[in-house]
Amino acid sequence: MIKVAICGGSGYTGAELLRILSGHPEVEVTLITSEKSAGKKVTALFPHLHKYCNFIYESLDKEKILQKADVFFMALPHGASQEAVDYFFKNGKKIIDLSADYRLSDPVVYEEWYKTPHNYADTLKQAVYGLPEFHREKIKNANLIANPGCYPTSAILGLYPAIKEGMVDIENIVIDSKSGTSGAGRKTNIDFSYCEVNEGFKAYGIAVHRHTPEIEQELSKIAGKKIKINFTPHLVPMDRGIISTMYAKMLKKLETAEIISVYKKYYDAEPFVNVLDEGVFPNTKNVRGSNFVDIGLKINNRTNTLIVVSAIDNLVKGASGQAVQNMNIMIGFKETIALQSQALFP
Amino acid sequence: MIKVAICGGSGYTGAELLRILSGHPEVEVTLITSEKSAGKKVTALFPHLHKYCNFIYESLDKEKILQKADVFFMALPHGASQEAVDYFFKNGKKIIDLSADYRLSDPVVYEEWYKTPHNYADTLKQAVYGLPEFHREKIKNANLIANPGCYPTSAILGLYPAIKEGMVDIENIVIDSKSGTSGAGRKTNIDFSYCEVNEGFKAYGIAVHRHTPEIEQELSKIAGKKIKINFTPHLVPMDRGIISTMYAKMLKKLETAEIISVYKKYYDAEPFVNVLDEGVFPNTKNVRGSNFVDIGLKINNRTNTLIVVSAIDNLVKGASGQAVQNMNIMIGFKETIALQSQALFP
Amino acid sequence: MIKVAICGGSGYTGAELLRILSGHPEVEVTLITSEKSAGKKVTALFPHLHKYCNFIYESLDKEKILQKADVFFMALPHGASQEAVDYFFKNGKKIIDLSADYRLSDPVVYEEWYKTPHNYADTLKQAVYGLPEFHREKIKNANLIANPGCYPTSAILGLYPAIKEGMVDIENIVIDSKSGTSGAGRKTNIDFSYCEVNEGFKAYGIAVHRHTPEIEQELSKIAGKKIKINFTPHLVPMDRGIISTMYAKMLKKLETAEIISVYKKYYDAEPFVNVLDEGVFPNTKNVRGSNFVDIGLKINNRTNTLIVVSAIDNLVKGASGQAVQNMNIMIGFKETIALQSQALFP
Amino acid sequence: MIKVAICGGSGYTGAELLRILSGHPEVEVTLITSEKSAGKKVTALFPHLHKYCNFIYESLDKEKILQKADVFFMALPHGASQEAVDYFFKNGKKIIDLSADYRLSDPVVYEEWYKTPHNYADTLKQAVYGLPEFHREKIKNANLIANPGCYPTSAILGLYPAIKEGMVDIENIVIDSKSGTSGAGRKTNIDFSYCEVNEGFKAYGIAVHRHTPEIEQELSKIAGKKIKINFTPHLVPMDRGIISTMYAKMLKKLETAEIISVYKKYYDAEPFVNVLDEGVFPNTKNVRGSNFVDIGLKINNRTNTLIVVSAIDNLVKGASGQAVQNMNIMIGFKETIALQSQALFP
Repeated sequence: MIKVAICGGSGYTGAELLRILSGHPEVEVTLITSEKSAGKKVTALFPHLHKYCNFIYESLDKEKILQKADVFFMALPHGASQEAVDYFFKNGKKIIDLSADYRLSDPVVYEEWYKTPHNYADTLKQAVYGLPEFHREKIKNANLIANPGCYPTSAILGLYPAIKEGMVDIENIVIDSKSGTSGAGRKTNIDFSYCEVNEGFKAYGIAVHRHTPEIEQELSKIAGKKIKINFTPHLVPMDRGIISTMYAKMLKKLETAEIISVYKKYYDAEPFVNVLDEGVFPNTKNVRGSNFVDIGLKINNRTNTLIVVSAIDNLVKGASGQAVQNMNIMIGFKETIALQSQALFP
Repeated sequence: MIKVAICGGSGYTGAELLRILSGHPEVEVTLITSEKSAGKKVTALFPHLHKYCNFIYESLDKEKILQKADVFFMALPHGASQEAVDYFFKNGKKIIDLSADYRLSDPVVYEEWYKTPHNYADTLKQAVYGLPEFHREKIKNANLIANPGCYPTSAILGLYPAIKEGMVDIENIVIDSKSGTSGAGRKTNIDFSYCEVNEGFKAYGIAVHRHTPEIEQELSKIAGKKIKINFTPHLVPMDRGIISTMYAKMLKKLETAEIISVYKKYYDAEPFVNVLDEGVFPNTKNVRGSNFVDIGLKINNRTNTLIVVSAIDNLVKGASGQAVQNMNIMIGFKETIALQSQALFP
Repeated sequence: MIKVAICGGSGYTGAELLRILSGHPEVEVTLITSEKSAGKKVTALFPHLHKYCNFIYESLDKEKILQKADVFFMALPHGASQEAVDYFFKNGKKIIDLSADYRLSDPVVYEEWYKTPHNYADTLKQAVYGLPEFHREKIKNANLIANPGCYPTSAILGLYPAIKEGMVDIENIVIDSKSGTSGAGRKTNIDFSYCEVNEGFKAYGIAVHRHTPEIEQELSKIAGKKIKINFTPHLVPMDRGIISTMYAKMLKKLETAEIISVYKKYYDAEPFVNVLDEGVFPNTKNVRGSNFVDIGLKINNRTNTLIVVSAIDNLVKGASGQAVQNMNIMIGFKETIALQSQALFP
Repeated sequence: MIKVAICGGSGYTGAELLRILSGHPEVEVTLITSEKSAGKKVTALFPHLHKYCNFIYESLDKEKILQKADVFFMALPHGASQEAVDYFFKNGKKIIDLSADYRLSDPVVYEEWYKTPHNYADTLKQAVYGLPEFHREKIKNANLIANPGCYPTSAILGLYPAIKEGMVDIENIVIDSKSGTSGAGRKTNIDFSYCEVNEGFKAYGIAVHRHTPEIEQELSKIAGKKIKINFTPHLVPMDRGIISTMYAKMLKKLETAEIISVYKKYYDAEPFVNVLDEGVFPNTKNVRGSNFVDIGLKINNRTNTLIVVSAIDNLVKGASGQAVQNMNIMIGFKETIALQSQALFP
């Protein structure tokens, strides 16, 4: 049994880690931290987690908890994660960081978008971007995983084969994404109160959202040259799920069926990626509560444009599920353990 | 490995059986029937059920499928289930009937409420009402389980200890229930279209809902005398979940803490029933996707009335989860197999 | 043109007053106050109120604003309203108080439920409970209206004819109410954040909700003797609307059609109350955004119980719409001005 | 008083016409037709329309109803509208057609996208595309208005100034739209049932939606040359509202503030178009139930791309409200009569 700690466990990603790990036969959760909720029962915040009714949130006292776990899931706020990750990493632990702190390999870009310097450049160099479909081999040997953001997961997986194959013009990529409200975290902000969100739909963070450089970094790796994108996130009145609708000009004429077969070659061995048949497009509802990614494809022959639509559950494949997938790969478990449940529908 | 068939698998309870059984290590689903969707892929109706992507709905040809399974889950419409259940039962199979056809032990009452005669009175006598918390011993030895209705499950479990202990006046029980929309099934009825249901709340079937005699039958068994209830169901703009709020006059003065401790005694050994602490009340969201029942209790000292609030997921503990629980008990498996996942929150 | 001030205008009832009054040809809103939002534009909080794009929230400086309006709508928090109402009242203004501060005529009962003393007993004696269907004549001559709570409006109107006619046993009345989330106000409380409310349903404030004594006070006036009720509010995942489902034992046998005709006699002259035909029951969606009350009735012959279901929009007939109705009556305008728009459906 | 008929009044746009016209002091609705619901009361389908409780749906018997109205609102299905419109037009009536039948001025394009020929080419030539902000002068003198589609209204108004001013590259325009479910009409289709739509988000009709040629026709008129677009509609789990997020490469460098001031010049005299300040973006919730259009603008300097976000209520400015606006203009009424109500929020 592997011992696992969750640091920053009072948010939705922390609760989701507990839910998923409750079905993992090889793992034992030994502790959960939360500064705000230290001393409270986990079930006081999350009554649905009956299995953890004896767990109490503790403070993140690094020295004290160091020996209590082999793997640390870090679900701290951006900025706050840097130092704690560095500490556990330097003390030989395996870490999966769900914050953004170790995702951007260039500290200058990090500071530009997150408005705070990165103080652990050496440790940052050791971090592997934890998108298994793209970096599986590196993940196997890593000790520090930067778990991808939710929007980037949906966008990168949706564009990977087309860019890798050099099929699309990388100059004018549009990524129009839509997310359920849990992506904002467990916040007491009036903007996320029920009556403000329900029965409304809006864009936010247009051209300035922090997931932009993360998407650009990975797409640039795939392309082998710098890519800049237009990325617009939107807020959907639902709890979970992301759809990214992506547009890129085709460099040569292809039929929809052909591009689907290219995508199927890339993803057929992937346990969590489903390339849908022609004419079928994803719905977030079909992946809710699961670690699956559904991808639909269409070539608009009138404009010679590729349109890719990808769907994930932002809290599972977009956060905690992918984190467990990364843990499974790092530790050498079967990659799909605890992640095989079918989506909850309806 | 036990072989399992699902008859009438194109509705939400059928899909939910598939989802739950996909996590059951001792069971193999061998066939799924649907008259309307015969010949279609299961994933054509339910794209979220990736694991069943090779399954095709077949017609319910009783003779043909008889030998293909040991256990038959029957999710046919009320009325249509009678004959098929009788056939499999007489041919020695184990059956869990999710329809209402074998729930009312008196065929006269059945005909009165369902407006169709019961033609298999002998088989009806063999049916056991599949509420494990009340009838577990009988379920162990049964071959035919009448799986309880969703509202009755929430109501009976909520009132069981209070009535059994003779604590409440059984003359004026009010059961005011509220259900998510999946309780109506997968229907192309304008009344259940999105724009009609969303942002609305209403009562329906007041004083005439068919779950009334089912609740009365079981409460009367508990009380040892005839009980008639006031039962009003309501439609909540959400997918899943039932709350039943129940009112009964106390026969003697008790404090809330005392009644809670009575309930805890009844349910502490139950794997799926949680009696909540004083001041805590259930939310359907905390049981969504799980087989759990949460029960909250309050005595209104000003009126000397017991108020019980119980919450279930209508598709799990209220239908398919309870059906699998019954199967586990009948077969002799551990009762909780495939049913231990925590609720999906948010 | 009547000059109108809104004190405490940064919440949903304040915004709703502005929306409704924007269609009132005889009224001019001259000022809006908010302590927290003083100095901000109304459209900074409520971008939908284009017509008020030049309005700035000011502080409630009583002396300064006294001469700026003839009628004061007070939408301050409970407790905070007492003193300001008293000041404007003593200075000869007409006041409609949307808080609870002047609803309970007995200051002892007020203090018991609101945990703060009532310091203006003399002014309290002058307040008229502003339910036009019950107290219209008094409202005409009043200067201070205590605008009813949302739950009480739905409950009292639903039970008024049955109690007045002495048709029901007043000992065991159950009022099971369900409200949309806007009833909680514009709050930055985690309990009302989108992901906590959406797809969930729960009871709250069981047997202790502050609307209990208000309902009891008015029902007791109707009955001519003390009534105690069981009142349970629930939270519905929708923005607006209240359904109250009410149960009372019939004192003699009646058919549903008969009780409907009694109710129709009471309400046929009422411009905002619709008694629905037999077999038809209300849906909050049919009154959303309107000042209407829909009432459905059923006698359960098996238990000899009357079941009344009433529906209102909690922000309109349950708050701001009723406030404008009261103003129209007080001032001598046609009662329905600015209140005739049909519900917004879907 | 102008006499008005509504043909095809059993859907959401028909009901919405009734709601809006109920507040129009110069108009009298004289009849409503529906083939499916002929003989039924309007309130049997739409209980919220109390004001129309005496209205009965009749069959569309053209000869019989011809003299009963001066203005005909046609809300028939696409294809079915052609002939009836032609009849009333040739008989000298004023017509506002809410179907798509008279929107595409080229009958060849119509047949290509609607798969049915246009049989009234002469009448088609007389039709004016009823977008007042673009074609007001023509509308004044028209007798036949083709009321724009919901998506086209949001898209054309969002792009009009930028294209008119020649500021953007018209080769690669992306229009990514999201609509509430009422846009699909009042349908008994399983795809629009509550449990299928709720808590899900999906794209549909990618590259083949029928609003594509309508948007292209109008944008081409503005540009003075042929424009082809990428248009992707999505379904949002809410009742009402459309957001269109639009992307176009800037032909020269501009700041966001500059493009906003260009838009303000175009729209400042418009009674229903609000160009939002820098940093403010629209939310469908702020226009719900109203005839307003909110437009937000951003220039992404990193990619030199203009991003326009526009919001409307699909049933009001996207259908029935715009239809009444067109009627007001045609008849010579003040353009804003019956259309000034503020949005219903929350």
